[in-house]
Amino acid sequence: MMEWKSVSKNLLSKNDLEEQLRQIGAKKYHDKHPFHLLLHGGNATQPQIQAWVLNRYCYQAAIPRKDAALLSKMADSGLRRKWRRRIEDHDGTSDQDGGIERWLILAEGVGLDRNYVSSTKGALPATKFAVEAYVDFVRNQPLFNGIASSLTELFAPGLHQERITGLLKHYEFANAKTLAYFQKRLSQAPRDVEFGLEWVLENANTPERQAGAIAALDFKCNVLWAQLDALYYAYVQPGLIPPDAWIPNS
Amino acid sequence: MMEWKSVSKNLLSKNDLEEQLRQIGAKKYHDKHPFHLLLHGGNATQPQIQAWVLNRYCYQAAIPRKDAALLSKMADSGLRRKWRRRIEDHDGTSDQDGGIERWLILAEGVGLDRNYVSSTKGALPATKFAVEAYVDFVRNQPLFNGIASSLTELFAPGLHQERITGLLKHYEFANAKTLAYFQKRLSQAPRDVEFGLEWVLENANTPERQAGAIAALDFKCNVLWAQLDALYYAYVQPGLIPPDAWIPNS
Repeated sequence: MMEWKSVSKNLLSKNDLEEQLRQIGAKKYHDKHPFHLLLHGGNATQPQIQAWVLNRYCYQAAIPRKDAALLSKMADSGLRRKWRRRIEDHDGTSDQDGGIERWLILAEGVGLDRNYVSSTKGALPATKFAVEAYVDFVRNQPLFNGIASSLTELFAPGLHQERITGLLKHYEFANAKTLAYFQKRLSQAPRDVEFGLEWVLENANTPERQAGAIAALDFKCNVLWAQLDALYYAYVQPGLIPPDAWIPNS
Repeated sequence: MMEWKSVSKNLLSKNDLEEQLRQIGAKKYHDKHPFHLLLHGGNATQPQIQAWVLNRYCYQAAIPRKDAALLSKMADSGLRRKWRRRIEDHDGTSDQDGGIERWLILAEGVGLDRNYVSSTKGALPATKFAVEAYVDFVRNQPLFNGIASSLTELFAPGLHQERITGLLKHYEFANAKTLAYFQKRLSQAPRDVEFGLEWVLENANTPERQAGAIAALDFKCNVLWAQLDALYYAYVQPGLIPPDAWIPNS
């Protein structure tokens, strides 16, 4: 109680707020999820990898909608122009494919049909619920909280590097082409989060906002973690695949 | 009643639907509003022109938020990429200023302070209510209706051409620089509406959707018309400026 009180009544310094945000990542960012340990350690089966790629597609495909919902709350044209880059990164431009296309190349690389993946027909309902909860959060919460929820990117480069190394070491499907999505994020995410973190720290100028930033990042970690929980339950242990979800070798 | 029944029960041909949409424009697009007749006919005073530029800024500045709200409802990456152009048109890119900047240049051209205009502090509450009703409509209605509401662009090039001609003829402030916003829209709007109209006609495949498209366009015409009503009442006749709104020569 004492600690909660101090968080809610006193304004933290920028450094202390950043430290609290980083602690959330240290505690519950999904790099620590058992499914990722399995995947990166070389112990995931092909169907498990396929299930991961198939389900995670829902998240990838939702990111531009999430960023557009954020954009729709920004009154400042300059801020919109900076944030728009994220939509371009995922949807692509006339010159360059985006992250969604790179994810579909990964899907083909692990032996899935791109149209089936992009239909999201075989994805777990729990995946979709978590993903849409994120879009709804950003749509319905104040802009500040929506931007704060993006700060999981603080922790993404470490995970992506670990993933690239682990996948290349352990799996035949892994190569520069299939892993291009992650390779690209290594440069995109730090650029995005540098701006996002600075903006949040600068605008977290009341105890309520600081608590909002912490809650938003906590929520977003839950969104990521819940997707892997659903995957683990269905395709690892106990392996209880719900009705209508993708069945390996189908 | 009979006519309403026929609209709601039978599927119109694409041609008939397009004709009905065009009839809405012919009846109530804001090119026919008395304020525009005054403005384009050379009979608007400088304060009236300033009031128009100042208030219309609210609408210009809201367009990217409206388009981002639409984008946030699009599940198709290709559709998002096409629609994103509209946001770029208004917010600009790293290479090129956008429509909002061009509007601020017009504001300076008619003798207003750009920071005061972009603060929207002096704009009429009725202007803001109409503009935000449009953003909310797009945010809360189905994607189809939101896209249909953009079809006022069918009627915009005629109005813009009339405006450019009228302003150049009658007012000293009018030149290529101050009217760049309208000149640019002459090429942007037809490109946008060609795609928008085709999409709406293609997707208006139930009587309910067709009625939705008609209602959305009708609503959007009201949004535009209501802004000019507010302007007219405050700055033309009876000239009753509400509290806190911009006062000429202030």
